Amino acid sequence: MLNRIDHIGIAVRDLDAAIQVYQRRLGLSVERRERVESEGIEIAMIPIGESRIELITPITPDSKVNKFLEERGEALHHVAYATDDVGGALHRAAIAGAQLLDGTPRPGADGSRVGFVHPRSCCGVLTEFVEADGYPGG
Amino acid sequence: MLNRIDHIGIAVRDLDAAIQVYQRRLGLSVERRERVESEGIEIAMIPIGESRIELITPITPDSKVNKFLEERGEALHHVAYATDDVGGALHRAAIAGAQLLDGTPRPGADGSRVGFVHPRSCCGVLTEFVEADGYPGG
Repeated sequence: MLNRIDHIGIAVRDLDAAIQVYQRRLGLSVERRERVESEGIEIAMIPIGESRIELITPITPDSKVNKFLEERGEALHHVAYATDDVGGALHRAAIAGAQLLDGTPRPGADGSRVGFVHPRSCCGVLTEFVEADGYPGG
Repeated sequence: MLNRIDHIGIAVRDLDAAIQVYQRRLGLSVERRERVESEGIEIAMIPIGESRIELITPITPDSKVNKFLEERGEALHHVAYATDDVGGALHRAAIAGAQLLDGTPRPGADGSRVGFVHPRSCCGVLTEFVEADGYPGG
């Protein structure tokens, strides 16, 4: 079961500039920044209600986010839903015909477990399931 | 002040098919459907936590969503933030240099008031402010 929107990911070219945009134009403040070397990205997390905005920028040339920016420019990148059971959510999607990018849950940021579904299986939307460590309801 | 993600909009070609996808693969159910003749669209609202997913399909050839689908295919279309004060949110964005699509709030669905900011002013993301009628905290 999916409980809430955990975060929406937005691909940006310049993380500092994007943080300024969201702070000055929308009044939203960054909670933390993190380099995810395994993905070749740096992220900034902006809390809003029970969700977060994840600003994402590539830090290596071969990052998938680089390819995304080349093809689409800065844009909405993915949606992540919080769940108590990433494995169950992936299984449900798969038996209903979805193409998974992760057959089983894998480690995400902050001790979470995550799994992705291919955009073509969710109306063009790269879709993530997140099972947070210590956050009630995923 | 923005309180929460009110909804994320997803442009789809076939509303019935998209509803099936979100129901069967993600376990999420539609709360209501609505034709918005003034925008040339039909929408389906799927509640999740304090937010909603808004599936959007064009119902007229000159709908802006038709153009979006031609250019991008099915994809994330916009993000809407709930606020107590759409006018104030638009004003804040404008004085911080954002290009507004609505200089002042205008009527939205369900008695709400809404205003949009141009994607180029929010890192490529079409951004909506929503002041709901009767919903605490916007």
